Amino acid sequence: MTGRASITSIISKVLNVAGLDADSKGFGVDMLNKSSYSWVLTRFAIDIRYRPKPFNVIEIATWISDCNRLMSTRNFIVRDSSGEIICEAISQWCVIDLESRKSVDLSFLQSCYRDYILGNLDATIARPAKIASLKAPRSSDHYALYSDIDFNKHVNALRYLNMMLDMVDIELLEDLRPLRVDLHYQHESYIGDKLTTSYEQSGNVSLFEVVRNDEVAAVKCKIEWR
Amino acid sequence: MTGRASITSIISKVLNVAGLDADSKGFGVDMLNKSSYSWVLTRFAIDIRYRPKPFNVIEIATWISDCNRLMSTRNFIVRDSSGEIICEAISQWCVIDLESRKSVDLSFLQSCYRDYILGNLDATIARPAKIASLKAPRSSDHYALYSDIDFNKHVNALRYLNMMLDMVDIELLEDLRPLRVDLHYQHESYIGDKLTTSYEQSGNVSLFEVVRNDEVAAVKCKIEWR
Repeated sequence: MTGRASITSIISKVLNVAGLDADSKGFGVDMLNKSSYSWVLTRFAIDIRYRPKPFNVIEIATWISDCNRLMSTRNFIVRDSSGEIICEAISQWCVIDLESRKSVDLSFLQSCYRDYILGNLDATIARPAKIASLKAPRSSDHYALYSDIDFNKHVNALRYLNMMLDMVDIELLEDLRPLRVDLHYQHESYIGDKLTTSYEQSGNVSLFEVVRNDEVAAVKCKIEWR
Repeated sequence: MTGRASITSIISKVLNVAGLDADSKGFGVDMLNKSSYSWVLTRFAIDIRYRPKPFNVIEIATWISDCNRLMSTRNFIVRDSSGEIICEAISQWCVIDLESRKSVDLSFLQSCYRDYILGNLDATIARPAKIASLKAPRSSDHYALYSDIDFNKHVNALRYLNMMLDMVDIELLEDLRPLRVDLHYQHESYIGDKLTTSYEQSGNVSLFEVVRNDEVAAVKCKIEWR
């Protein structure tokens, strides 16, 4: 509605490139699926400086900056065709066992990963932040449907983000000022689960939480509109 | 959940290529927006022979096969890297005035369009079919949200399809047999509108209708599972 890429579509492009890069280096979802494992996004942050127009060509650079036994950290820098930075992002991933849905020790990746851990390079983005609890939110319920689910058989990371953004005033969503999004994925949710999205605005900060079946936080999110 | 491209994602790739092709030839949305016009999809049909896997490289060929004063017809043939046909599609488009939301006479396109109307070429797909009315459907309501809306400020064509598919048994959705989808977009709907999705299954045919604000059909759809 703004003639610019939406927040969700920018993040979608960034995450797609993570998949392509991992796949091309031999440790993508396809490889992990052979052991009934899969990559799962746990934390994500993005600084969006400006929003590209349709058909603008963008270049997304990505690399693994760090990895320990619990998680792998991947950075992104997105530039336009003149080399100007559109956004920077940082993501943390774990590997889960698709049967137990528990995270596994990442040591098994060591041999194929070793040459690809490149440190911070040109990255300037701060690591994903802690996200405060909500005090007096508005809430809305949704039962997870087939189209909410992705290849990992859980509700898709960006679907949660859309559910949260749907609660924000359109004027704010269509204001094209720079912004930072922090996302913390805490528990998976599945088809049929009740998802309660809570939202609170204080000044230029939006806080969100999606609770699964009245029990646990599936996702927390903070957006700073700069 | 099947490890294959979903119906919606295949159609999304096809429709994106329509936009890229029109843009590269000088009659894309960007150009039309200068006159406060935009392209709107009215009918679409796709024969899906098989579903590609993630990271499979596909080639989407598209061309304008016909155009009259009311609508422009665009065909697609999608092939895999061995040249085998994955799917064929056909789409009909009108141009609307973004203020009045009414369709306009396409004669104004004649000078830039003339060289690009190529007829049927290799296409074998039948034109979009009439879609029968439902007799005893199940129904579900949804109020259109921000994330349902696209750059044309109406509910996105594929969002309707997801709403309809969300009513179908998962077993059928995950059966990877060939299928044909016919979609007929009849009236636009906007943020806040009540959308009632009705669904009926008879044999291997799924019929759907989305009604806007209890008044008019926004979309009708038929899927044949072959």
